[in-house]
Amino acid sequence: MELIDGKATAATIKAEIKAEVEQIVAQGGRRPHLAAILVGHDGGSETYVKNKVLACEACGFQSTLLRFEDDITEEELLACVSQLNENPEIDGFIVQLPLPRHINEQHVIEAIDYRKDVDGFHPINVGRMAIGLPCFISATPLGILTLLQRYHIPTSGKKCVILGRSNIVGKPMAQLMTQKQYGDATVTVCHSRSQTLKEECREADIVIAAIGQPGFVTADMVKEGATVIDVGTTRVPDATRKTGFRLSGDVLFEEVAPKCSHITPVPGGVGPMTICMLMLNTLSAAKKEFYK
Amino acid sequence: MELIDGKATAATIKAEIKAEVEQIVAQGGRRPHLAAILVGHDGGSETYVKNKVLACEACGFQSTLLRFEDDITEEELLACVSQLNENPEIDGFIVQLPLPRHINEQHVIEAIDYRKDVDGFHPINVGRMAIGLPCFISATPLGILTLLQRYHIPTSGKKCVILGRSNIVGKPMAQLMTQKQYGDATVTVCHSRSQTLKEECREADIVIAAIGQPGFVTADMVKEGATVIDVGTTRVPDATRKTGFRLSGDVLFEEVAPKCSHITPVPGGVGPMTICMLMLNTLSAAKKEFYK
Repeated sequence: MELIDGKATAATIKAEIKAEVEQIVAQGGRRPHLAAILVGHDGGSETYVKNKVLACEACGFQSTLLRFEDDITEEELLACVSQLNENPEIDGFIVQLPLPRHINEQHVIEAIDYRKDVDGFHPINVGRMAIGLPCFISATPLGILTLLQRYHIPTSGKKCVILGRSNIVGKPMAQLMTQKQYGDATVTVCHSRSQTLKEECREADIVIAAIGQPGFVTADMVKEGATVIDVGTTRVPDATRKTGFRLSGDVLFEEVAPKCSHITPVPGGVGPMTICMLMLNTLSAAKKEFYK
Repeated sequence: MELIDGKATAATIKAEIKAEVEQIVAQGGRRPHLAAILVGHDGGSETYVKNKVLACEACGFQSTLLRFEDDITEEELLACVSQLNENPEIDGFIVQLPLPRHINEQHVIEAIDYRKDVDGFHPINVGRMAIGLPCFISATPLGILTLLQRYHIPTSGKKCVILGRSNIVGKPMAQLMTQKQYGDATVTVCHSRSQTLKEECREADIVIAAIGQPGFVTADMVKEGATVIDVGTTRVPDATRKTGFRLSGDVLFEEVAPKCSHITPVPGGVGPMTICMLMLNTLSAAKKEFYK
């Protein structure tokens, strides 16, 4: 069994990005510039945004954090999005989700210029990804794809079972794993209503679990020699930790790992790749790789 | 075994559409107006467009056919698209594919106002469909979904195997069958590289074949009591026909049909539904059902 070390892979990629950025700067170019909009004081969001700012520093990017209180109106937020759209100094930006209830998240996402949508949530990027055109691919699926590639895990023609059908992981992951130029796999998406979920998993060469149920995937659901990617990051109360919680994956690691050819741990697997892929998308935006 | 009669279902739906249109007109409204752009003289395209014009008549729509020769430039075609975008009398329009080689089809598709894109090929419609937002769903997948619904075939939690991963059938079909508000099924997409295609098919409650290989699906690949939807329409030479060819599906009908609970014939199954769904999308456009 080989552990898929997302932390190390992310560090390697960030170093690669930084090297490219320094080359751009040495040739007289501008540093990529990522902006983030953070509304309110949600603990998780604060942590994510802080880590994104730190990752920008590690990659040699410029970063801008725009903070607003919970009572910002949708109109004010849309005005801010519009300013970032028009600011030629900003290559890409994200609006940290979730937003307060009085704001329609979809309105905000669709207001972002798709050419600066480094989260890949705008319908134009979602649609272009679905039909295999160049675009910003959202960070978590792109991170998983990158881990599979960097660990040379064969995917073409293999059976890949995806647990969960969320818009940010399950659905885009299924699309990417199906397409010839990415996974080229035989892909099955299972979810809460699936009558044959366990049987599907047992036949899978690759299992990607993204349902948010700690320990859902047990040893009896995994084929000997399978690759298991655990996207779950549920906060489970843990009095022994300073924070009062620990992150738990969807996979019962202790019993599943011995059967696997490859497996991602939680934390340190998919998680670190996500922010790293946001950096890669920002670099792509700065290089105008997908859009002029 | 019950035959799924696409021709009869399409006729019923067209009658429903016509009834609604006449009601709109009686209340002082305008008839829905579909325009079609046809470039060149491809036999298949001529037939499709002719049938679309006839379907408009059957539904009480106004229709406009814009014809251009093969040597039209991309610029000229884009100018025509732009005029249709801006014409308030046109509710929706299609550009019949394929286009001559010197024209970039994707440029033309993306030039269409997504609010008039009744084919559902614009990335905004593709993307909104992928994440479950209201939008124009392309005709063939929408037609299949409608047949499953009208024949009361259970899909929720069932295993649905889709053969083929094309942008116009396989991929959107997989997305629709996965989503809770549509198929809610456990969906597997198989294709030319799949190592376990036959095994997947044998376990399926619903098989949707869209690969364009006549007679590919044989009796040994289908479970007793399965529903089989045949999207294949390959022209096979046939000297006994006036046209010189007959349409052949992807399913070996004679041997597969006896095992099925439901099956679509070719022709007369999915085919007639496709144009009918284009009419439904045009009605939706006229009613501004998805976009203002």
